[in-house]
Amino acid sequence: MVGYVEDSDLAEMPQVPLTLEGSSVLHQMFHFDWTAWKKLAVEERGAIAAEFAALLARWESGANPGDPTVPPNQSALFSMLGHKGDLMLIHFRDTFEALNAVELELAQTGINAFLTQTTSYVSIVEMGLYESTEKIYAPLLEKGLQPGTVEWATGIEDGLSRTRAALTPRLYPAIPAAKYNCFYPMDRKRGEQVNWYTEPISDRRVMMHEHGMVGRRYAETVRQIITGSIGMDDWEWGVDLFAEDPLTFKKLIYEMRFDKVSAVYASFGQFFLSVRVPAANAGHWLEGKLE
Amino acid sequence: MVGYVEDSDLAEMPQVPLTLEGSSVLHQMFHFDWTAWKKLAVEERGAIAAEFAALLARWESGANPGDPTVPPNQSALFSMLGHKGDLMLIHFRDTFEALNAVELELAQTGINAFLTQTTSYVSIVEMGLYESTEKIYAPLLEKGLQPGTVEWATGIEDGLSRTRAALTPRLYPAIPAAKYNCFYPMDRKRGEQVNWYTEPISDRRVMMHEHGMVGRRYAETVRQIITGSIGMDDWEWGVDLFAEDPLTFKKLIYEMRFDKVSAVYASFGQFFLSVRVPAANAGHWLEGKLE
Amino acid sequence: MVGYVEDSDLAEMPQVPLTLEGSSVLHQMFHFDWTAWKKLAVEERGAIAAEFAALLARWESGANPGDPTVPPNQSALFSMLGHKGDLMLIHFRDTFEALNAVELELAQTGINAFLTQTTSYVSIVEMGLYESTEKIYAPLLEKGLQPGTVEWATGIEDGLSRTRAALTPRLYPAIPAAKYNCFYPMDRKRGEQVNWYTEPISDRRVMMHEHGMVGRRYAETVRQIITGSIGMDDWEWGVDLFAEDPLTFKKLIYEMRFDKVSAVYASFGQFFLSVRVPAANAGHWLEGKLE
Amino acid sequence: MVGYVEDSDLAEMPQVPLTLEGSSVLHQMFHFDWTAWKKLAVEERGAIAAEFAALLARWESGANPGDPTVPPNQSALFSMLGHKGDLMLIHFRDTFEALNAVELELAQTGINAFLTQTTSYVSIVEMGLYESTEKIYAPLLEKGLQPGTVEWATGIEDGLSRTRAALTPRLYPAIPAAKYNCFYPMDRKRGEQVNWYTEPISDRRVMMHEHGMVGRRYAETVRQIITGSIGMDDWEWGVDLFAEDPLTFKKLIYEMRFDKVSAVYASFGQFFLSVRVPAANAGHWLEGKLE
Amino acid sequence: MVGYVEDSDLAEMPQVPLTLEGSSVLHQMFHFDWTAWKKLAVEERGAIAAEFAALLARWESGANPGDPTVPPNQSALFSMLGHKGDLMLIHFRDTFEALNAVELELAQTGINAFLTQTTSYVSIVEMGLYESTEKIYAPLLEKGLQPGTVEWATGIEDGLSRTRAALTPRLYPAIPAAKYNCFYPMDRKRGEQVNWYTEPISDRRVMMHEHGMVGRRYAETVRQIITGSIGMDDWEWGVDLFAEDPLTFKKLIYEMRFDKVSAVYASFGQFFLSVRVPAANAGHWLEGKLE
Repeated sequence: MVGYVEDSDLAEMPQVPLTLEGSSVLHQMFHFDWTAWKKLAVEERGAIAAEFAALLARWESGANPGDPTVPPNQSALFSMLGHKGDLMLIHFRDTFEALNAVELELAQTGINAFLTQTTSYVSIVEMGLYESTEKIYAPLLEKGLQPGTVEWATGIEDGLSRTRAALTPRLYPAIPAAKYNCFYPMDRKRGEQVNWYTEPISDRRVMMHEHGMVGRRYAETVRQIITGSIGMDDWEWGVDLFAEDPLTFKKLIYEMRFDKVSAVYASFGQFFLSVRVPAANAGHWLEGKLE
Repeated sequence: MVGYVEDSDLAEMPQVPLTLEGSSVLHQMFHFDWTAWKKLAVEERGAIAAEFAALLARWESGANPGDPTVPPNQSALFSMLGHKGDLMLIHFRDTFEALNAVELELAQTGINAFLTQTTSYVSIVEMGLYESTEKIYAPLLEKGLQPGTVEWATGIEDGLSRTRAALTPRLYPAIPAAKYNCFYPMDRKRGEQVNWYTEPISDRRVMMHEHGMVGRRYAETVRQIITGSIGMDDWEWGVDLFAEDPLTFKKLIYEMRFDKVSAVYASFGQFFLSVRVPAANAGHWLEGKLE
Repeated sequence: MVGYVEDSDLAEMPQVPLTLEGSSVLHQMFHFDWTAWKKLAVEERGAIAAEFAALLARWESGANPGDPTVPPNQSALFSMLGHKGDLMLIHFRDTFEALNAVELELAQTGINAFLTQTTSYVSIVEMGLYESTEKIYAPLLEKGLQPGTVEWATGIEDGLSRTRAALTPRLYPAIPAAKYNCFYPMDRKRGEQVNWYTEPISDRRVMMHEHGMVGRRYAETVRQIITGSIGMDDWEWGVDLFAEDPLTFKKLIYEMRFDKVSAVYASFGQFFLSVRVPAANAGHWLEGKLE
Repeated sequence: MVGYVEDSDLAEMPQVPLTLEGSSVLHQMFHFDWTAWKKLAVEERGAIAAEFAALLARWESGANPGDPTVPPNQSALFSMLGHKGDLMLIHFRDTFEALNAVELELAQTGINAFLTQTTSYVSIVEMGLYESTEKIYAPLLEKGLQPGTVEWATGIEDGLSRTRAALTPRLYPAIPAAKYNCFYPMDRKRGEQVNWYTEPISDRRVMMHEHGMVGRRYAETVRQIITGSIGMDDWEWGVDLFAEDPLTFKKLIYEMRFDKVSAVYASFGQFFLSVRVPAANAGHWLEGKLE
Repeated sequence: MVGYVEDSDLAEMPQVPLTLEGSSVLHQMFHFDWTAWKKLAVEERGAIAAEFAALLARWESGANPGDPTVPPNQSALFSMLGHKGDLMLIHFRDTFEALNAVELELAQTGINAFLTQTTSYVSIVEMGLYESTEKIYAPLLEKGLQPGTVEWATGIEDGLSRTRAALTPRLYPAIPAAKYNCFYPMDRKRGEQVNWYTEPISDRRVMMHEHGMVGRRYAETVRQIITGSIGMDDWEWGVDLFAEDPLTFKKLIYEMRFDKVSAVYASFGQFFLSVRVPAANAGHWLEGKLE
């Protein structure tokens, strides 16, 4: 490969990989109080369900469907398996402020009295650019530019501009329509002997490449959206997988677990498995029917 | 790191063991609110108990008893020891969607108002094929096939087809009728010096074989069902043991704890011990009697 | 010492120490809702207290006091220090099924509405036989018998029969009458460098012997009951200490903490300190008086 | 242990870096009970909201705006993202007693019935003086003064007096007006092989300097306030970042994570992201509107 | 393992340091339900507050103020900072039974309905005698006495008697009147490579001495009471610091953290900071005023 610095200048190579960010994302997991809900009169339930379905329909469609240059701003509803929650909402918005407004808007609805938030996740769509980072850094270093200067920042921005344009649809994605979602947060380890953050960037690039190769084999059956959450939530990244067959989640993650980057450096949080509930089916769900 | 494979020949042998999957499984653990239950009028209790017993009887029988080619789709009720819960339901279904429908169906019943879910476990019946994996991989590698290609996948599928047919009854098992159940989730360690996922597959095969030999000695007194949960729940595997004598659980697990694979590589979650309550006895249980 | 195998045949020596088991044991810790209790009319409190005291008196006496060949089947009540609970019940029964029946019986009483279970522990009285294990294994190995065969099991059973008879009173103990109880669960470590389960059985025997010597010095002031909980609860063992002077608990455990087996290999859970409340004093306790 | 100083010369240099402290700080995170709030009559809500807004306006302005020699004593309100809370209050006061009085004052207001505190953080503004410490210690050591004597303390105080005067505005800061806040607590590791507290002070100074250089690049877009909490709360430090663009939090913290001091020695707690709500907007927030 | 004593001579020196114990101690932390409290009629609040203040006044004075040979048996009330609780009570009593009686007595009062215990700590005043231990052991060893024998115990008792008499006021301390309290529990580490309990007693003595020297410098501004809790609660020791200026807690603990015994061997639990509320001010506190 051309352009990778491998000699003693290596020490000058900045160790932080470049990233591009897109939509702000909020996962909300809720317990639903069926007992209180069933005590309501049928008409009351109907009114609240209609209000909720209408809100979801609006959120699901995205705010600006007519203008393709505007990010989708979509939300989607899921029915969760197990005790960690009954319903999950995933929201993609342009800003974190807009996500906070979504939380406040939901809190004003009738359904809110039956929802208790069990957990949540705050993050932002992130494309890690391990493949490009050293290629962008190297010529700047050769010109003698110093990280932290205006010239350096301009050079980086130049190097990223084409990539950003090409990746925009993935930075502001629509929510895949697949039947199942798997969500989990994760860290890279900073242990006493195993520490991702002290490995040279070129070694990390090679490991991420190997990791990406496994993902590519599943590209037709699993859609993956990575979000970064450093400074936003308790783990470093969140991973959303979307597929028609949930067994694919297990096959993919198990195979990846033998990659060096996962086997040695990954630390995982809780896993959440759920079934998509289109806004049009939200009323059925509130009657206890999945479809 | 200990044991990471760096040799270019070994690297050709894929490190992921083959697995076969069957029924989707949900464990639900519940606290039962005896105080609220005792406040109900006798007739109300009777009606709710009858509804619950009827639902359990249907679930216990399995959905398709008349067609032996269709998986059992059974559920079973257990009375739990200790504070982690009062009742446990184990559900085996064809799909995770069907498990989610079971959750929603239970939530619509009268008994639901007295149940608080304390924990749960989402997994899928899994047969790990450490004995066969290298035997299936080796001839494909000799033919020069590459993992990730269509030819490779076809070769794997050919190698697995007879095994899958032979294992179908174990992949879609009926729930054993034994009096006691022991359930616990577990991981294989990915520590800084002890890392299951970086051990060569042939070493892992030998350790799993030794482990299996211990299990075989208990085959007559303990029935074991392993479920995988990578991508589905917070641990990698769930283990269900069924026996008439609960002391057997302790003897088996203690003996296994000295196997290298457990002593060195196993990490265990919580343990749940409970007593089977046949659907026909559910009404008695709701009157405070175990039988 | 005669009869211990120390040469290259050592590898054949099974590493699992022999154990004998006795009574099934349940510890229940409860918060008591004084606020709700004080709101009851005096007569109601009296009726509930009388029902509770009568139940405790029956449980405390043991089910079969007239027949010395039948295990005691006793329960005892304790007043707990600190926020982990207000009341603790320890139950010894013949089976886990009987323990579950005890839970259900208590749940039907009037006092149950004021009790919230904060934690619990499920285990079985266990005598570890590190001193005898190799002595029993060695002659069987010399005869060429193989672990896991019927002949081996018969040989073990022969070796254990006299020990079991001698230990029966300790396997099915009455609950000591001492004023204070200290309960805690514990594990043996399975760390990356310190792993009890990979130490040779002869080394473990020596360490357990040293440990036992410390305990023996306290034999007159502290009564100890060890229960095993592998496959039954979240830790491997539970330890109950009974003494008139609670300072003895600290002295004993601190001294033992310097034994190699504790210093290096022990991992401890929560500690619970409580004061015995004889069934005859349960009514007083419910009036806020310890005696 | 790695890095423990055993050399008798080095041992003379005290290892504790000098610090200066300023305002006492309390972070309060609250869940807001929208369901109960919405049940109130409109006038009741209005009265409570007005009382809350007036209290906030007083706290936000600071107690002594007319006297620049008196610390600000400000508080600020934030709308939190995710389930960790709905509202956060940050209070800066002259003393911890004054912070406790703030807690009691809030508890007397009408809004208090709708707030449940989910977590909090108690700390004090701290300027770590790694750059100056050895410069101040060295001449005292050369004079033969001993740490712990009156002469030593006087020498330190002389060395610090000018720095303290210069840093006063940063020790008693006004709360930055930026739109977003990121708060997280952190520790320096005391592991078995990686232990910040056994590294020589000169090495720690170099690492802190490198760390500070990264921070300086972000000085125009992120305002940082470090508080110390040893002896006051469960972590050693709390970090508050204020910025108009929350993505800057991620960029800054990610870049710092590759610094040696963070990569190797930092341990992080939970991260809280929230949006500033000026006192003037508190009433709107209580109607579900962010602005 | 590092540091385990294998030398047969050293092995004769017992490794357990001598300790002396005094008052039994209970820390109780409570949430106070301001919302329910404010709903009470003014007279009701007044009656409950008066009852509470009277109880506190009695507890604060100590049971036997007229007889200096009787331990103080005092309690003290504190107003807590942050969400871990609103009120803390520290009780010193002659026995654990007396502490349990205190819990039951408080539970019978009117204020109890507004208190929820969030946590607690059970321990006993302990003076560790690292300086004296080897001096007492050595002559007994020279006489050929064996640990665990009656002669040994008598020799120890003789060696301790004068120390015990001299330390009695510190073993049964009055509660210092300082304005601020800092409480935290702690352990000594038993890690895989760093293990306090396998270090030779003479090395531990040296480290404890260095640690004590730091404490001595703060003797005029901080009053420290160490309690031991092995066998009584979840950590090995509890530390109470009392001072007029809470910044002193931070200065003291931060300086000590660089001592080898803390830097390498200490593991800390939660930290609780609170402000003393004399019994005479308890009524004011219940009106929301700190003084």
